[in-house]
Amino acid sequence: MSLPAGWTPNPALDLVLERLIDLTPAQVWAAWTTPEHVMKWFTPAPWTVAACEIDLRAGGIFSTDMRAPDGQIFPNIGVILEVVPNERLIFTDTLQPGYRPSDNPFMTAIISVIPAGSGSKYTAIAMHRDEATRIKHEEMGFHSGWGLALDQMITHMQKQ
Amino acid sequence: MSLPAGWTPNPALDLVLERLIDLTPAQVWAAWTTPEHVMKWFTPAPWTVAACEIDLRAGGIFSTDMRAPDGQIFPNIGVILEVVPNERLIFTDTLQPGYRPSDNPFMTAIISVIPAGSGSKYTAIAMHRDEATRIKHEEMGFHSGWGLALDQMITHMQKQ
Repeated sequence: MSLPAGWTPNPALDLVLERLIDLTPAQVWAAWTTPEHVMKWFTPAPWTVAACEIDLRAGGIFSTDMRAPDGQIFPNIGVILEVVPNERLIFTDTLQPGYRPSDNPFMTAIISVIPAGSGSKYTAIAMHRDEATRIKHEEMGFHSGWGLALDQMITHMQKQ
Repeated sequence: MSLPAGWTPNPALDLVLERLIDLTPAQVWAAWTTPEHVMKWFTPAPWTVAACEIDLRAGGIFSTDMRAPDGQIFPNIGVILEVVPNERLIFTDTLQPGYRPSDNPFMTAIISVIPAGSGSKYTAIAMHRDEATRIKHEEMGFHSGWGLALDQMITHMQKQ
């Protein structure tokens, strides 16, 4: 189990995507921490990633500019909290780079991966500040959206 | 300089207390990271600390229950972000233990200490999400309050 020490799930506040996938932990790690890869899979088509910046250390930026089909750009800036190579990445938009509190916080994400057979068990968790925000994220399409992005990640990384 | 890489001050959003003090960096570190010490100095008298819990790791709890002169308790729960022994402690109430977003975020604090002569240069920074929150904290008495707490820290640690 590659979740943070002391972390416990809260179904009222958390959304969880868990799947056995055909990528190694190292492939998942590369997919999540390399901007060139992130830009290929992070947004379900026809959305795309217009820009991505990752400073892979606690306190470093994790930023993705998402481009809607009509061309509008939605910036998405957060900060990395934990980096455990090939195991766990935690980031949040609750803080901005330099740990400055955000004026528009939404979630903390935990990406956890452990070896399973020739692939991995992949877990993506989105934690929210209250039940209303969790419900809003669920209605925005968390499960289908993060699931489609994961499909795109697998297809993209298997071609590398 | 023991501030985080890439951190830049923002006078509209940050409050800063900086002082040369007659404690070593190791004494300041002990004062900030040991609940028994924190309880002796953290709140300007006649306020006291009713309880303190510190799990000294990134993601661990930093909690102080403050007791008002009338006996009312004000809990104050946050999470530790960076631990650089004898140099820098960063914590925030923007996230709760396990990095869960807070439903009532207020600030991130950076405590930085570097050797200076036989003592230290001590810097305490409070970062806020917007100017209104910075002004509110200033009007709550940031400068006198954090300054009095620092006086209490020095008096307490010099007796150890």
